[in-house]
Amino acid sequence: MKINGKDQTAIWVKNKTIYFIDQRKLPFAYELYTAKTVDDIAYAIKDMVVRGAPAIGAAAAYGMALGCKTPEKTATILRSTRPTAHDLFYAVQYMLNHLKNGKDPFTVAETFVQDIIDRCRRIGDHGNTLIKDGMRILTHCNAGALATVDYGTALAPFRAAHAQGKNIFIYADETRPRLQGLLTAWELHQEGIPHVLIVDNAAGYFMQLGQIDMVITGADRIAANGDSANKIGTYEKAVLAKKHHIPFYVAAPISTFDKSLATGKEIIIEERSPLEITHPFKSQLMPEWVSVKNPAFDITPSELVTGYITETGVIKKLL
Amino acid sequence: MKINGKDQTAIWVKNKTIYFIDQRKLPFAYELYTAKTVDDIAYAIKDMVVRGAPAIGAAAAYGMALGCKTPEKTATILRSTRPTAHDLFYAVQYMLNHLKNGKDPFTVAETFVQDIIDRCRRIGDHGNTLIKDGMRILTHCNAGALATVDYGTALAPFRAAHAQGKNIFIYADETRPRLQGLLTAWELHQEGIPHVLIVDNAAGYFMQLGQIDMVITGADRIAANGDSANKIGTYEKAVLAKKHHIPFYVAAPISTFDKSLATGKEIIIEERSPLEITHPFKSQLMPEWVSVKNPAFDITPSELVTGYITETGVIKKLL
Repeated sequence: MKINGKDQTAIWVKNKTIYFIDQRKLPFAYELYTAKTVDDIAYAIKDMVVRGAPAIGAAAAYGMALGCKTPEKTATILRSTRPTAHDLFYAVQYMLNHLKNGKDPFTVAETFVQDIIDRCRRIGDHGNTLIKDGMRILTHCNAGALATVDYGTALAPFRAAHAQGKNIFIYADETRPRLQGLLTAWELHQEGIPHVLIVDNAAGYFMQLGQIDMVITGADRIAANGDSANKIGTYEKAVLAKKHHIPFYVAAPISTFDKSLATGKEIIIEERSPLEITHPFKSQLMPEWVSVKNPAFDITPSELVTGYITETGVIKKLL
Repeated sequence: MKINGKDQTAIWVKNKTIYFIDQRKLPFAYELYTAKTVDDIAYAIKDMVVRGAPAIGAAAAYGMALGCKTPEKTATILRSTRPTAHDLFYAVQYMLNHLKNGKDPFTVAETFVQDIIDRCRRIGDHGNTLIKDGMRILTHCNAGALATVDYGTALAPFRAAHAQGKNIFIYADETRPRLQGLLTAWELHQEGIPHVLIVDNAAGYFMQLGQIDMVITGADRIAANGDSANKIGTYEKAVLAKKHHIPFYVAAPISTFDKSLATGKEIIIEERSPLEITHPFKSQLMPEWVSVKNPAFDITPSELVTGYITETGVIKKLL
């Protein structure tokens, strides 16, 4: 990803310290968060210093490297941080498997993270084959480089299309409550890709006007039948896309698929703090007496999904 | 409406001064805005001290009373404040017609406003016939007493059902960008009606769970074929309701119907200031460089509407 014109990644290691672009500070300020212990990593995952399934996986891999002397204890701490993040469990298990044979734990983690980055680059290349010159594409939440160490999942095809000289225009849903659409806008702004941020309520309006040609979102977890869990509101956009005959793609690495889940009904939806709604960026938007409910994810049934953009290619329909 | 346990209205007159509950201050503070001139009224409409089609109509009627010595000039000033508010034009014309025969202008305006209140009360009674005990109902924006001087349009049936002892539960969309859902939550809180506020992204999720039995929204303008203009996001909820076989009702006084418009396509959609998105309640939520688009309304096609709750009864389908 480009930041201030230079290529860099969202997470990196130097001298056994893990550096994160602090996503709680973006898009207002570009600051780094440093982690030297497993608890620092757990905090980063819980408090959303780092967010997005693959990036959380990368953080967990580095966390396992930091806690390599007590791998089972470290695994327990890291697994408890986010219940819907399948990549987190995958990363922890990968590290447990590979730490056994005496390899340097940071080298193992680095290999794991490089693999994530490479998969995202390939998601971008495959997704780019779906994008025609002039297309206007809606995305929800931030499935960008910030969420995946580099390139992104949903945003990777935009980067690839833009790099190839295609003219594209991105509508970024602001994505209440946490407004991750601002992270998407920040990445697109840094990359020089034309875009606009809209409130979540306006996506249907622009579809009605015929100004959206495609939707690409990420996914936190995909069941065996193709039902996918993603940020709250994704389901609404999928229903609207279907209504308007707009192709709706889910971009995610193969590791997001969880064949142990027959359908999306088995995915547990996390309900998060009311403060996310009432106090975005920790500033008070609503009075104390307001009663809210804050489901963090929803399930998009496979029948609303045109295809899955993965590192191995575009899968039009799952079995 | 109840405020701190007492019955009152959202707009009233005393000694040729018009008092408004200042909706820019709600729900954080209960403050009054006073208008003594036509310009004060125009400012109140433009800056959303008062909002909602019928309340704007009431404000305009009082504005015509204040500017009764130069009725045509006053009419021009008031008509220029909000292009989609049909009730504004209706109120101005009503006053022009009735000021001619020498009646006291404040008495004429008062009669007009009492008629609005009475129509809302009847909308509540008719809407209540659709509500069964135990129903969970979604509403979008604030079509409440604040928007209509008293009772509300979409909220009037909730008040009537609650007064009759029916158990109901209301989901209030927060309604970005201006978060008018907070006004709805404030009214329901004052009235003691069980409710919760959700982000606009979550309505589809609760429909998927089978936790929403009905949707009632207001309307700013309704075309001859039943297409209705309402707050941005209403269309998304209507599409979702249809998908889930949930009845979707539009509550509005007959004056909202504009037979001069064949379909919703003829309704001009106002694009409002980007600051509404980036600076809700005038506090900065987004950095300066963020590029946004802010359409204020959308059109819900009549085929998505189960019926129209009016002061003369529930109209199931327009011709």
